[in-house]
Amino acid sequence: MKIVTKTARFSSPLYLESGRILEPYEIAYETYGELNEDKSNVVLVCHALSGSHHAAGLYESDRKAGWWDGLIGDDKAIDTKKYFVVCTNVIGSCFGSTGPMSGMYPSEEPYRLKFPVVTIKDMIRAQMQLLSSLGIYHLRAIIGGSMGGMQALQFAVDYPNLADNIISLAATYATRPWTIAFNKVAVEAIRKDPRFKNGNYDKNAFKKEGLDGLAIGRIAGHISYLSPASMDEKFGRNYVSNDGLFELFGRYEVERYLEYNTANFARMFDPLSYLYIVKAINTFNLSRGYDSLYDAISRIKSRMHLISFSTDYLFFPEEMEHIYKMMERNGQSCSYLEVKSEYGHDAFLVELEKFDESIREILK
Amino acid sequence: MKIVTKTARFSSPLYLESGRILEPYEIAYETYGELNEDKSNVVLVCHALSGSHHAAGLYESDRKAGWWDGLIGDDKAIDTKKYFVVCTNVIGSCFGSTGPMSGMYPSEEPYRLKFPVVTIKDMIRAQMQLLSSLGIYHLRAIIGGSMGGMQALQFAVDYPNLADNIISLAATYATRPWTIAFNKVAVEAIRKDPRFKNGNYDKNAFKKEGLDGLAIGRIAGHISYLSPASMDEKFGRNYVSNDGLFELFGRYEVERYLEYNTANFARMFDPLSYLYIVKAINTFNLSRGYDSLYDAISRIKSRMHLISFSTDYLFFPEEMEHIYKMMERNGQSCSYLEVKSEYGHDAFLVELEKFDESIREILK
Repeated sequence: MKIVTKTARFSSPLYLESGRILEPYEIAYETYGELNEDKSNVVLVCHALSGSHHAAGLYESDRKAGWWDGLIGDDKAIDTKKYFVVCTNVIGSCFGSTGPMSGMYPSEEPYRLKFPVVTIKDMIRAQMQLLSSLGIYHLRAIIGGSMGGMQALQFAVDYPNLADNIISLAATYATRPWTIAFNKVAVEAIRKDPRFKNGNYDKNAFKKEGLDGLAIGRIAGHISYLSPASMDEKFGRNYVSNDGLFELFGRYEVERYLEYNTANFARMFDPLSYLYIVKAINTFNLSRGYDSLYDAISRIKSRMHLISFSTDYLFFPEEMEHIYKMMERNGQSCSYLEVKSEYGHDAFLVELEKFDESIREILK
Repeated sequence: MKIVTKTARFSSPLYLESGRILEPYEIAYETYGELNEDKSNVVLVCHALSGSHHAAGLYESDRKAGWWDGLIGDDKAIDTKKYFVVCTNVIGSCFGSTGPMSGMYPSEEPYRLKFPVVTIKDMIRAQMQLLSSLGIYHLRAIIGGSMGGMQALQFAVDYPNLADNIISLAATYATRPWTIAFNKVAVEAIRKDPRFKNGNYDKNAFKKEGLDGLAIGRIAGHISYLSPASMDEKFGRNYVSNDGLFELFGRYEVERYLEYNTANFARMFDPLSYLYIVKAINTFNLSRGYDSLYDAISRIKSRMHLISFSTDYLFFPEEMEHIYKMMERNGQSCSYLEVKSEYGHDAFLVELEKFDESIREILK
């Protein structure tokens, strides 16, 4: 599989939903496989909150492959022998695309809290610019899970002629207060952390020791990505402290897992980017800009494929089913699969074997 | 209804599950109604994590009545014309019973992190001491929800001859990693808050402005007490900031609710008490000290009444049902009611009308 990692720079403004503009801006992206002559073999992959454009393959220095490596590659469900796969880092993120810690042109001073709020609509508008710059005007498919699934849905509504197929996993039509509440833990924990300094932290401040507030917020994130049953299976009531059960700060295995993973995460993710991306998730509402959800959904011309996970506690299966039912009543092309899983929301990253075949079928 | 608020002081040691002792110790408690001559009309009520012994009635300076005022009173389900109701503040709490900020006798220095870990078993052992001191050796019923429901279950197992009826609501037989994970947000947020000072904060430090870490942890708590549907109903996607949707720190109504309530909570609850009580909840396991859960449950002689709530996302109905099925198979007296509710875990405090009649029946 041929992998190319690049950053594209755009000097024309990106008009944002807020009315503000981003200018100039950069989009980091990766491609897998090769573009065919008539550019008819493109699949766009969209990433989730903490993801990046590194969706597949292994960098030399890395221990872990891209976040959907099990799905993207030669002879895999998204077959890079056939398809040219593109994945971009969303604007607002911290892995190469323009975000709050990028320089505010022409100065090199980072935007920080002056960065404009970006939405899911803005994220896909930026991706449209990238695709145009590559001379790509039609896609075989757009696929993504969680916030990536939101992007896929928004593409379907905003650009009805763009893609043959839309595959949205573990997402929703509008973020519910339940999810906003989970995100609120991170928002408050980051804002109230004295080291956050109201966004004026040193750029390298958290490389050695991550921001506590982000790690704390991420604990709430992990809860929402898992499920009660997956935690039973993974951790049970195992206790891992040498000091015994009656030490106040003695830890259950689930606590050790949360501490370890969230501390790592806080070292590699930028707190301002986290706030901005969480805001994009909170404000996601397919019907915004249209008369109603029905009006938005009615615009869709692509074949829609919705995949939910039975124990997803962040975006519940009913939410995807709601879109499916609306499209079905409306006579639009739509399939819906509820994957039986104990893995919770994270199933879209973990239990690939349970929907791998469906993706192959769709792309055939 | 006659209300008496008192604090009892015990100079003999309380032997704790950890092997440590608490000596001396105090128990704050409230009683409602009057004790009959043969002391045969006593109902013990057990409170949850953030509750206190103030279960019913209105203090003069208070705007809000006790936490189960709708259930306890003259002619109410727990009828204070008939019953003498006792509710104690659990040890480890911060409303009058001995806890981490109590003086470490003979000094007046607070225990802080030297306070011993207390468990649900310890909490009920302390209540046994209080009951003995009042000359009460038999109860008509023990009732409680959430951590109060854990206490009721533990009473049933540890003191099989104590109560005619045990009524446990919205609880479990052993705390699952899912709940431990929710609690972990508070544990980490409190510990990592610089104002917590490793427990060495000034006793009055948080009266004006609560500890941020406790407020942040409490956000996670609120999520687990509510349900996706109750949040939809209560908040929807209403946005309450004047600055418009595209302000980074603009707030949805659910966010305002969480900010307001958790800030209030952090002013009235002690952070160390929170850590100790959360630890008691995390370590709750009915089978500890017995060969198995079956062995523990088999000891129960009281009539058991289990009430769960269909959308409880903290202690799931299956968990209560598990106890019910075990007792039923075992030929023990047990009833089980799953209340249909959209209110989540908090339904045991909110939707009293849905189980009021059941409580009346049980106590008849």
